[in-house]
Amino acid sequence: MSGRLIGVGTGPGDPELLTLKAVRALGAADVVAHFAKAGRNGNARATVEGFLRPDAIELPLLYPVTTELPARGADYATALAAFFAEAAATVEAHLAAGRTVAVLSEGDPLFYGSYMHLHVRLAPRWPAEVVPGITAMSGCWSQAGLPLVQGDEVLTVLPGTLPEVELARRLADSPASVIMKVGRNLPRIRRALDTAGKLARAVYVERGTMERTVTTPLAAKGDDLAPYFSIVLVPGWEGRP
Amino acid sequence: MSGRLIGVGTGPGDPELLTLKAVRALGAADVVAHFAKAGRNGNARATVEGFLRPDAIELPLLYPVTTELPARGADYATALAAFFAEAAATVEAHLAAGRTVAVLSEGDPLFYGSYMHLHVRLAPRWPAEVVPGITAMSGCWSQAGLPLVQGDEVLTVLPGTLPEVELARRLADSPASVIMKVGRNLPRIRRALDTAGKLARAVYVERGTMERTVTTPLAAKGDDLAPYFSIVLVPGWEGRP
Repeated sequence: MSGRLIGVGTGPGDPELLTLKAVRALGAADVVAHFAKAGRNGNARATVEGFLRPDAIELPLLYPVTTELPARGADYATALAAFFAEAAATVEAHLAAGRTVAVLSEGDPLFYGSYMHLHVRLAPRWPAEVVPGITAMSGCWSQAGLPLVQGDEVLTVLPGTLPEVELARRLADSPASVIMKVGRNLPRIRRALDTAGKLARAVYVERGTMERTVTTPLAAKGDDLAPYFSIVLVPGWEGRP
Repeated sequence: MSGRLIGVGTGPGDPELLTLKAVRALGAADVVAHFAKAGRNGNARATVEGFLRPDAIELPLLYPVTTELPARGADYATALAAFFAEAAATVEAHLAAGRTVAVLSEGDPLFYGSYMHLHVRLAPRWPAEVVPGITAMSGCWSQAGLPLVQGDEVLTVLPGTLPEVELARRLADSPASVIMKVGRNLPRIRRALDTAGKLARAVYVERGTMERTVTTPLAAKGDDLAPYFSIVLVPGWEGRP
């Protein structure tokens, strides 16, 4: 009996957006790990409630630092690397005991997901599989009914943690964009959109596909409160056939 | 009894990558429409085999032109617009008869999918819902076990139909890229990657998540044969923690 690692994309939050493959992986998992901030279970864990085996071992992996702030030094990188190495060792102990370990990942595991840090450390030594998930951005534009890109259009995905000048330059250079990790970066993102001449097209989505979700033109939204998992969509499609 | 339109993302090809929501939508559909080239059913229809109601009315919507070629004139746009208008009218007749119409879309409906052309025409007049799907690119990087972007990295999604100079410029300017619609554009894409200094990092995936799929470094792949639904991945992640 050999240990097996499965990175499971849990999608944007609505449990109905789990794939059949994810549901089967969760049903086969002896151990279910998830990344979270201390004191919170996180969206991925909430999404899979009701899909785990009653006897599954739960393994929360708690970040030692926040990933939201743009200004980060060498200490931050060191702390994060040590955390991922320790998390990989914890998961590997279960693999060595012959267990199937599912690691939950909000959205898609290899698209800005923490799971990838375990994958690169463990996949060279253990059977590993990645189950893709619906990304948060797909969940948001689908809920908003907002066609994002068509035909020959370029799409740029921008973390909202980027410097304002770089955000503005890339927004101006791309027919369509998605800005992730909005949260407290919203005032800077708004200024960059304005500079790029894209503010009027921008749509803000908060808690996409989940309860109490909000969709509004960004121009109508205040800078006061935006959760980290909110997204700004700038659709292309100006010359639709 | 009111007609209802549902754009259903069928994902990259593996039926296991359908979402629970997509499966339910297919089970509720009186009419199942899909876009295809004349003489071929297309991947979306193949993916949902076994998930449709036995009494569902099938409605193939056959493209009058190919969307693969980069050089396209006004005639092309006119033909395509007429086709989408006619397809919308055909679907609307079923909606007016009180039927639930599911329109299949490979990958994600509002991400380069033809469904969006029906959505913009019909959603203002009929109840409409979009069920997001796993994109082809997610299916490809998951199958390859290739972490694509992390942290503050930018991702650029590029249709392979773009001019070589623009491809090279955007590839050089982005930490990570995905090139869609490869097919007969492969020689030009390869030259652009070479110009941008990214050829050695590029991974080619053909028929991702489907039978007879191929994953190989692009440098090891000939220019001879590439299907339209092949993808080139240029992962970021050069400075991973």
